[in-house]
Amino acid sequence: MNSSTQIKELIRAIPDFPKPGIMFRDVSTLMKDAKGLDLTIKGLVALFKDMKIDAVVAIESRGFVIGGPIAQALGTGMIMARKPGKLPAEVEELEYKLEYGTDRIQIHKDAISRGTRCLVVDDLLATGGTAEATCKLVEKLGGIVVGCGFIVNLPELKGTERLARYKTSWLVEFEGH
Amino acid sequence: MNSSTQIKELIRAIPDFPKPGIMFRDVSTLMKDAKGLDLTIKGLVALFKDMKIDAVVAIESRGFVIGGPIAQALGTGMIMARKPGKLPAEVEELEYKLEYGTDRIQIHKDAISRGTRCLVVDDLLATGGTAEATCKLVEKLGGIVVGCGFIVNLPELKGTERLARYKTSWLVEFEGH
Repeated sequence: MNSSTQIKELIRAIPDFPKPGIMFRDVSTLMKDAKGLDLTIKGLVALFKDMKIDAVVAIESRGFVIGGPIAQALGTGMIMARKPGKLPAEVEELEYKLEYGTDRIQIHKDAISRGTRCLVVDDLLATGGTAEATCKLVEKLGGIVVGCGFIVNLPELKGTERLARYKTSWLVEFEGH
Repeated sequence: MNSSTQIKELIRAIPDFPKPGIMFRDVSTLMKDAKGLDLTIKGLVALFKDMKIDAVVAIESRGFVIGGPIAQALGTGMIMARKPGKLPAEVEELEYKLEYGTDRIQIHKDAISRGTRCLVVDDLLATGGTAEATCKLVEKLGGIVVGCGFIVNLPELKGTERLARYKTSWLVEFEGH
């Protein structure tokens, strides 16, 4: 069994979460599995190891679980992209549209310098709204988005189209959403 | 310069966050530093590597940043302890007191089995309320808390007294709170 198949089998499907009609892909069952966690980190590191990454930007909260070990393996630090009000120092932020209303994502202003080569990571790529906002925020701070990495892509939600400007990679895909 | 000194120097102090009178110890500046992140993970792994850990339980959200790489280095998986409403499958929870009011922490019911030897990790030990609740929740699920690990301890807030039943370790301390 190859590693993608192993990873896929460790991700649990939960119907109707967080709302009816949504099939939630639960990576907690992958993360709590020693082999699954290791395969996931090594798989993502392999995709980006030759891209001269300066910093891993991880999206709150599940993105932090993979952001830490990916950064350590790539020999970089990890920068947190967080919801409003969580980061204590001066932030830059970006507002983005949700299905209903808007949301904002923030990064510490001094976390990224002009030319910092960033890898943006999160557990799952759905519509790509948060990931796209995070990439634009990295650019607003002067950084370069070298790539975007996810454990899971949900192709029906077309997140890769939204991230078309970036090199976007993932380990496994699921049909439906 | 030893690693504790290096780690301590990379943690930023932010006065009056999240409210007046609090000196916030900001580990984001440590995490975004490649050397700092690596020293932190290796330091915490060294403290617990011979304790036959089965699972790392990380407390949302900053705990996830170190929980992922510590788990990978120890050859275990990582379990998320989260705020209410975030985990998609059936949860066990524990309510605990805050200065004003109460809060709750949740873990997936099937994440821990009877006898699972757990290491609980978070970035910072202050009063120890959330960490103690997480330890009790692990025990409620049948697990054994083998130890608690933090980057920072704030001794004036006496979190170690609250966690006196557990082997509690940390990498650096700061006076004041």
